[in-house]
Amino acid sequence: MADLYLVLLHHPVYDKNGDVVTTAVTNMDVHDIGRLSRTFGVRGFFVCTPVETLRRLVARIMQHWDTGPGSTYNATRKQALALVRQAPDLDAVIADIERETGTLPIVIATTAKDGPDRLKFPELRQGLRRPGRPFLLIFGTGWGLHESILARSDRILEPIKGSGDYNHLSVRSAAAIILDRLRDDR
Amino acid sequence: MADLYLVLLHHPVYDKNGDVVTTAVTNMDVHDIGRLSRTFGVRGFFVCTPVETLRRLVARIMQHWDTGPGSTYNATRKQALALVRQAPDLDAVIADIERETGTLPIVIATTAKDGPDRLKFPELRQGLRRPGRPFLLIFGTGWGLHESILARSDRILEPIKGSGDYNHLSVRSAAAIILDRLRDDR
Repeated sequence: MADLYLVLLHHPVYDKNGDVVTTAVTNMDVHDIGRLSRTFGVRGFFVCTPVETLRRLVARIMQHWDTGPGSTYNATRKQALALVRQAPDLDAVIADIERETGTLPIVIATTAKDGPDRLKFPELRQGLRRPGRPFLLIFGTGWGLHESILARSDRILEPIKGSGDYNHLSVRSAAAIILDRLRDDR
Repeated sequence: MADLYLVLLHHPVYDKNGDVVTTAVTNMDVHDIGRLSRTFGVRGFFVCTPVETLRRLVARIMQHWDTGPGSTYNATRKQALALVRQAPDLDAVIADIERETGTLPIVIATTAKDGPDRLKFPELRQGLRRPGRPFLLIFGTGWGLHESILARSDRILEPIKGSGDYNHLSVRSAAAIILDRLRDDR
């Protein structure tokens, strides 16, 4: 099975007006996506922000659950948070994965929008089942990943469709559904 | 297609020591599960707590997005929150569904634990595709639904399995995966 990594990008992303912004790191994102990563065999989950103060905040959260009071309060949370890593930007994430695996990852962006040549879930699921280059799935915050991130990705994953036209999910919900579709025990 | 309702129960649930408690309502749960409900064609999402102060809090959240500042800030959030209803206990939820549909719902409890005679996802998916009695899916908070809730349910849904033994997901993540498995556009 290929290695799977996730990154949650807080910059560059759009806000509701289409401006490029840096979003704040949300404690709940780190926990929920950390627990999902543990459940679905993700090798590393990068929380990525250029803001050093926010990286210090994440470091404190991780320390709380690793060696602080949280480590004895809830051991399953400790296991999940152990997968969390940090990086200032996407380049640093890719460099870290290359260092760890010896290979550049195949970079897959996620989006809520339809578009040409989207990668289908079953195709990515098959790719992940074969040994080979690691995969890196990029999740955006705010109103979605900046076009420069989509442009530099190897492929863009098709959006999640529900039973109607509405697909305004939180990134936490999207990550849950995407990981389940790619890695459940079927 | 049968009507699907959700309820998020804050009592009676277990805490980490196995004691029966009432958990606090979490703003993020209301938003994430509201947006999921809209995406996957859920008819109503009940936030259920016996604590009147917390029901007033949820009413304020709903009002903020329905007619308050949130209604013009983010219309998609307004659409999602419009599905949210409140109830003091499970009986009130069931009574409300019976009033609306003319029929008692088939009550399905969710759990992270394996056990005898769990309802399989494909079977529930098929049931939801046929017209007939409405379904009510119960999600627990804290360390899971009290045994009395499991005992009075018609069926218990099988737990989510990932790619290993770890399955300590947030209720937000579990709801995302369960709705996608039952109602995606496959």
